[in-house]
Amino acid sequence: MSEVPARTPRLSRRRLFGLLGGTGALGAAAGVVATRSMVDDPVTSGGDVVEFFGDHQAGIVTPAQDRLHFATFDLSPVAKRDQLIELLTEWTNASLRMTAGQDVGSGSVTGDPGAPPDDTGEALGLSPARLTITVGFGTTLFDGRFGLADRRPEQLADLPTFAGDALRSEISGGDLCVQACSNDPQVAVHAIRNLARIARGTASVRWSQLGFGRTSSTTTAQQTPRNMMGFKDGTANLKAEDTDLMAEHVWAQPGDGQDWMTGGSYLVARRIRMLIEPWDSTPLTEQERVIGRTKGTGAPIGKSAEFDTTDLGRLDPNSHVRLAHPDNNAGARILRRGYSFTDGTDDLGRLDAGLFFLAYQRDPRTQFVTIQNSLAGNNNDALNEYLQHVGSGLFACPPGVKAGEHWGQALFG
Amino acid sequence: MSEVPARTPRLSRRRLFGLLGGTGALGAAAGVVATRSMVDDPVTSGGDVVEFFGDHQAGIVTPAQDRLHFATFDLSPVAKRDQLIELLTEWTNASLRMTAGQDVGSGSVTGDPGAPPDDTGEALGLSPARLTITVGFGTTLFDGRFGLADRRPEQLADLPTFAGDALRSEISGGDLCVQACSNDPQVAVHAIRNLARIARGTASVRWSQLGFGRTSSTTTAQQTPRNMMGFKDGTANLKAEDTDLMAEHVWAQPGDGQDWMTGGSYLVARRIRMLIEPWDSTPLTEQERVIGRTKGTGAPIGKSAEFDTTDLGRLDPNSHVRLAHPDNNAGARILRRGYSFTDGTDDLGRLDAGLFFLAYQRDPRTQFVTIQNSLAGNNNDALNEYLQHVGSGLFACPPGVKAGEHWGQALFG
Repeated sequence: MSEVPARTPRLSRRRLFGLLGGTGALGAAAGVVATRSMVDDPVTSGGDVVEFFGDHQAGIVTPAQDRLHFATFDLSPVAKRDQLIELLTEWTNASLRMTAGQDVGSGSVTGDPGAPPDDTGEALGLSPARLTITVGFGTTLFDGRFGLADRRPEQLADLPTFAGDALRSEISGGDLCVQACSNDPQVAVHAIRNLARIARGTASVRWSQLGFGRTSSTTTAQQTPRNMMGFKDGTANLKAEDTDLMAEHVWAQPGDGQDWMTGGSYLVARRIRMLIEPWDSTPLTEQERVIGRTKGTGAPIGKSAEFDTTDLGRLDPNSHVRLAHPDNNAGARILRRGYSFTDGTDDLGRLDAGLFFLAYQRDPRTQFVTIQNSLAGNNNDALNEYLQHVGSGLFACPPGVKAGEHWGQALFG
Repeated sequence: MSEVPARTPRLSRRRLFGLLGGTGALGAAAGVVATRSMVDDPVTSGGDVVEFFGDHQAGIVTPAQDRLHFATFDLSPVAKRDQLIELLTEWTNASLRMTAGQDVGSGSVTGDPGAPPDDTGEALGLSPARLTITVGFGTTLFDGRFGLADRRPEQLADLPTFAGDALRSEISGGDLCVQACSNDPQVAVHAIRNLARIARGTASVRWSQLGFGRTSSTTTAQQTPRNMMGFKDGTANLKAEDTDLMAEHVWAQPGDGQDWMTGGSYLVARRIRMLIEPWDSTPLTEQERVIGRTKGTGAPIGKSAEFDTTDLGRLDPNSHVRLAHPDNNAGARILRRGYSFTDGTDDLGRLDAGLFFLAYQRDPRTQFVTIQNSLAGNNNDALNEYLQHVGSGLFACPPGVKAGEHWGQALFG
């Protein structure tokens, strides 16, 4: 190594944000964007940008993008409440920029050459490809370290242990989560990486998961994708156009409990490994019986088209669709937003692949937990023979951000 | 579990292929396609299909697709030469179908409902998105188990141990390799999964690797992508349009040694982990010194545009570009075709990310080995401080397939 340039004094990214408004100052985020848009490369096109601000966070009812990078973070043992707020402020500002197709902070390649670039650079020149960044607060964030114990929503009750769970702590939980979705995986990876970099010293990644293909539609215009079992998945998913159903099943409402969550939603994440090899050895009719749909069209058993009404009486009592149906779960419905994953092979040469299940809801206690209790266990969902839940997380995703605010601002008010 | 349907007798996939032509029979593969194209859904469009047949295998000079699934396989300890040939025949037939946008064998959902579907189904309705499937033979395939010891090309010499190597055997080597590239990752994953399924009982996956973004261009029309260090990568790569250079540096030529390899190419695969966190803490000018290019434009140091001629004298003596340059390596050049990967985080919370390096060449002894000897070691490439080679493979990729042949047919002649 030679010619290491002398490091010249400069404003750090953190100090720069502070000068531009800092924690909670109105207009800070918008101001940063206006400043940067004059010097950035024009890499954005309108159709590729999802609006960052709004009553709800983007990335929940936004039409599900094709690719995912999801990560959870743990706060440092020495981190204090002010650092958590500063982190959320910096994440908000950086995410506002990245979702608009801009690089983070003061430039990847135009900043002080004697300092590390503020952006890692691999998304330079790429469209944001409808990047959304969605943040959630884990149950452990409310354990008293940050003075938030009395702000914990009752809906954020620890998930019970379900029959058959094989959870691994190293891919479960986390104080914070970030869901980055984009139609370009490099853009999603770039987003998580840069947020992890901003967090350094305050929080570190606990685990992360890439998803290569969406397994749900969140709008009626999207074609239903197929999961790694080869079946259409999410046909009966809630759809964003049904705003009444969104209010009933997805968004926290005034009076639900903690006011700071109004307009937010609760996210359940489950890493569900599929036992690919046994599934692939199963006859077609057995696969269809287990799921409750025909494989080709996706029609419910006994019907002819994908969106035909399901006749539960014609489905096997242990079929997945029948057991997960709202009629079997006191009307419980969730907004699924999951992704297929493949993470190489295990030490027996079997594909480590499956579904990274993500579902948003208004109250997990009466929604995901109710449904999963119907499914879990050897005597319930016939699909359990081919599945293993190996990771789990539960997060309170606060409402959307207004200009000048930061994620979860009302939580700290 | 209930209502398991009785399994009815049927032609197995293996027997079906046998009846339609079997090992080595002319016209078998083409015959299968013609039969199936009458009943398959019309999911293909011309521009999304890369021709399977040809003098060379597709997936080498084919414009690099955006996504990768790569796997290596080990033959079963009891597998014999005939089973290896049968496997290559079945793989050829299935790959011919999948690259044309068809499902494997006799149908995902239209076959005998009492038997497992011949295709796993997750690519139903998807375009092949320029899927290519490229096969290679590892050094261990020539160890005598299959009567191939005297057919081993001298170019397929075991790679030496390079300074700094930190190779892990569980993600290195393999009797066979398959490179599946597509612009749709679900299509690439589907291809590897179905080839693994066909191999069951004969060969099993040793290791596999997903790549989410290409890091090289293989034609002049492609824009140079950025790698996980944020730099444009592969600017000086060989380009398919330079057919003279392809003949000189990529394709095995008559007289090179083993005639069965004429028209083939040798593939070096290296899983190169990038030490992301130290890199991201490095000043911009130091990053640029280490690489030998400016980060924004990709221009060589001292020049203004990406494709300007490199002036080696202006580059740091330890810069990556200078040490890897043909002028520093007796003119050695390789065709790079690598992909960025991110496989979650390690147990210290650091991103497990980097470059899955793939390079094709006529003779690794005088090409990759020469270049890597220039780069490896603490006193050479300054980039080594931020890299770790953790996986490695070397494969002889046979020439292209003609209708009615199977991969590597001349090897067994």
